[in-house]
Amino acid sequence: MKFNDLAQQALQRADELATCTETPGILKRTFLSDPMKKTHELVRSWMQNAGMQVRVDALGNIVGRLQGKGPKAFLTGSHLDTVPDAGKYDGMLGVLIGIAAAEAIGTQNLNFHFDTIGFSDEEGVRYKMPYLGSLAISGLFKEEFLSRVDDKGITMADAIKNFGLNPADYKSAAYNFAEVKGFAEVHIEQGPVLEAQKLALGAVTGLVGQSRIKLYFRGLAGHAGTTPMPGRLDAFAALSELAVFVEKYGLSIPHLVATIGMAQVRPGGANVIPGEVYFSLDIRHGDQPVLDQATEVILAEAEHIAKRRGIKMAIETKESQAVVKCDEHLVNKMAQAMEKHGHQHFHLASGAGHDTAILSKVTPTAMLFIRSPGGISHNPIETVNVEDVAAAIEVFVSFLRSV
Amino acid sequence: MKFNDLAQQALQRADELATCTETPGILKRTFLSDPMKKTHELVRSWMQNAGMQVRVDALGNIVGRLQGKGPKAFLTGSHLDTVPDAGKYDGMLGVLIGIAAAEAIGTQNLNFHFDTIGFSDEEGVRYKMPYLGSLAISGLFKEEFLSRVDDKGITMADAIKNFGLNPADYKSAAYNFAEVKGFAEVHIEQGPVLEAQKLALGAVTGLVGQSRIKLYFRGLAGHAGTTPMPGRLDAFAALSELAVFVEKYGLSIPHLVATIGMAQVRPGGANVIPGEVYFSLDIRHGDQPVLDQATEVILAEAEHIAKRRGIKMAIETKESQAVVKCDEHLVNKMAQAMEKHGHQHFHLASGAGHDTAILSKVTPTAMLFIRSPGGISHNPIETVNVEDVAAAIEVFVSFLRSV
Repeated sequence: MKFNDLAQQALQRADELATCTETPGILKRTFLSDPMKKTHELVRSWMQNAGMQVRVDALGNIVGRLQGKGPKAFLTGSHLDTVPDAGKYDGMLGVLIGIAAAEAIGTQNLNFHFDTIGFSDEEGVRYKMPYLGSLAISGLFKEEFLSRVDDKGITMADAIKNFGLNPADYKSAAYNFAEVKGFAEVHIEQGPVLEAQKLALGAVTGLVGQSRIKLYFRGLAGHAGTTPMPGRLDAFAALSELAVFVEKYGLSIPHLVATIGMAQVRPGGANVIPGEVYFSLDIRHGDQPVLDQATEVILAEAEHIAKRRGIKMAIETKESQAVVKCDEHLVNKMAQAMEKHGHQHFHLASGAGHDTAILSKVTPTAMLFIRSPGGISHNPIETVNVEDVAAAIEVFVSFLRSV
Repeated sequence: MKFNDLAQQALQRADELATCTETPGILKRTFLSDPMKKTHELVRSWMQNAGMQVRVDALGNIVGRLQGKGPKAFLTGSHLDTVPDAGKYDGMLGVLIGIAAAEAIGTQNLNFHFDTIGFSDEEGVRYKMPYLGSLAISGLFKEEFLSRVDDKGITMADAIKNFGLNPADYKSAAYNFAEVKGFAEVHIEQGPVLEAQKLALGAVTGLVGQSRIKLYFRGLAGHAGTTPMPGRLDAFAALSELAVFVEKYGLSIPHLVATIGMAQVRPGGANVIPGEVYFSLDIRHGDQPVLDQATEVILAEAEHIAKRRGIKMAIETKESQAVVKCDEHLVNKMAQAMEKHGHQHFHLASGAGHDTAILSKVTPTAMLFIRSPGGISHNPIETVNVEDVAAAIEVFVSFLRSV
C-alpha cells in the first residue's frame, strides 16, 4: 500500500475506534472501561493483519510486535483512552500510525523487533492519575496505585480483574530496557504552531516543564456602594493586576506560556467588593532554568502586589513537572527523515504531556508531531489532514530504518 | 427620659426585634413573613407607649402618629424587613429612633402630626423587588406587583391576605402628599466614611445613582500548554486589563465608586485558556453627569480593550438608577440641628439605597446617618455606638422642632 492509502486506512480506523465509547453521542473511553474491549478487538485484528504478534499486558496495554532480527526492540505507541467528549486522533492516531508503519515495512526484516503499544491510560480520567499504561511499561508502576478508587468506588485492582487481567502481574508489563533501543511516539500537535508555520510535521525536542499553582488573594469584602475606593482591599483588583503582569511577562520570554485559567471571585455578588479570589497559575517552558525563573518572578510579583495592597496571599498547592528532553540522537534521526522527504527541519517542544514523558525516564525517546488544523484538541472537532498523516507514516518508516 | 436612656432603650428594643426571625440562629425577616406579626406587636406597644395612635396599612406598613396641631404631617421611618443573616440596626434603628423622638417630644404639641412608619419591605428579598412598603406609602405601588410570586409560589396578594390584610386596598396605603411636609429617615451609614472622619453623624445630601451592567468578553478557549502567548484570545486577560482600568479610574474621580464584584471565568480549568468571562460592573456617584460620564468612559474602555484584542464584548443587561437629591432646605435644617448640638457640619451622599429614594419622588426628604463601626452592614456583626444613637435622637428632635 502507498502511504496515502495507509493514511486513508488509518483515518477510517480512527472513525471506527471513535464508535467505542462509554457515552453514546460523544467519545469517552477511560482506563479499562467496557468499550476498551471492542477497541482491543479492532486493534488486535489490525495488528495481526499487519503481521504483528499481539499480547495484552496486566495493565491492559495492547502490544503488537513486528518480528525483526532482534534481540533488541524499538518501541512506538500512544494511548487508546480519551478525555470526555474527545476528538478521534489524540493518542489513537499514534497507535494507528505504528500499525501502518508495520504494514509498510511488511516482511522486510528490520535489525530489531518493532513494537507498537496501545497504552491503556494516559489521560488519567478514571483514576485521576495519568500515564497508568506507560508507567507499567516503564517499570514505574507502583503497587499502591492498585488501591485507588474511581468515582463508582471500584478499585483499580478490581477494574483490572473485571477486564479479565491479573493486577498482581503488574510488574510483568515492564520491558527489560536493556533490550530496548528507544521509543518514538507520533502524535497530533494539539496546538497551532505547525499550522502557523505551514508545516505538516515537526520533530519534538522534548516536553515542556510545568509549574501548577493554586492560590488565594484575601482582602476584605465590602458594600460596593458605601465603601470609598481609597482603602478598599479588593482581592479581584489584586488578581487583575497580577494577570496583566502574567500576560505581559509571558509575552516577553520566548516560548514561555503562562495562564490564569481558573479564577473564583468570592463572595461574587455584583454589589459586593470581592473579599477573596482563588485562582490558578499554569506556567510552562521547555528549558528548566527559564521555567524556574519564570515561576519565581511571577510568584514574587504576586507577593509584591499583595503586600503593597495590604492583602494576604496564600499558596494552596504548588506542583511542578520537570522539563523532559528527548534523545538528541533520535531527534536528529527524526529530523533527517523529515528532510529526506522534503519537509523543513523544524523543531518544537511539546506543550502538553505525552507517554513519551514517562518512557524518557527509562529509554531514549523521540516524537513526531502532526499538524493540528485550528490547533484544536480535546474536542470533537479535532481533526488532521490525510496528506499530513501520509507524510508522517512515510517519515516514520524512514526514521525506523535509520535507528 | 434623657437621650442616653432613650438610646439605651432603642438598642434593647433592637435586640428584641432581632429575636423575630424566620430562621433560628440568624436574623432573617422578609415581607409579611410570620415573625413580622410579633414585630408589629412589639412596635405597636412601643408606639402606643410613646403616645402614638397606631395603624397597619394594606401593604403591612405600621404607622404610629403623634398627634400635633395638624393638618399637615411630617414623616419619618425606615424598614422592618431584613436581608438574610442580617444585623440588628439596618432599617429597624430608624423606626426605633422615630419612636424615641416621639417619646422625647411627648405632650409638647408640634405644629404638625409626626408619623413614624415601619416599612414592611425595603430589601426586596421575598419578591425580588425592593421598596414595596415605601412604594405603597408614596402612591407608586402598582396593582400588577400583587401577582408576583415568592420562592414558594405564593403570590404577593395571598401573602397580604395571609397576614390578615386586604390587597385590594393597596391604594389606601398612600398618603395625600398635599398634607405631608416632608420625610426624614435616620439610618446607620453602612459604610466607613463617618468612622474615618471620627464623626457620629452625617447629613445626607442624596442617594448616589447607580449603573448596573452585566456583560461578556468572549475570546477563544485553548490549551494552556500548546497555545503560544502571541495570538491568544484570552477573555480573562481582557477582563483583567479592564479591571485595572476600572480601579484606577474609580480612584481618580472624587466620590466615584466602581466595582467588579462578580466574574465567572469559563471554562475554568487550570490548564485551559479562558474563552469567556461573564462579569458585572457597578458604578455609583452622587452627581448624575459624573455617573453618566463614568459609565460611558468605562464601557468605552471595555469596547476598546475587546477590539484591540480581537475578542467580542456583549452587554447582557444595563440598568440604571438615577441620582436622588434630598431637599436642600431640609438637609440644611438637619445640618443646623447637628451644629446646634456640637456636631461638625458634615455632608455625604448615601452609597446604598433607602426608602428615602422612593419618598423623594413625592415629598421633600432628608436623611441622618449614624456612624457604622467598621463600616459593616448586612452582617450579624453590624453595630452602633450608644452615644451616637443618643446624639442622633437629640439632633433629630431638634430637627423636627425646626421644620
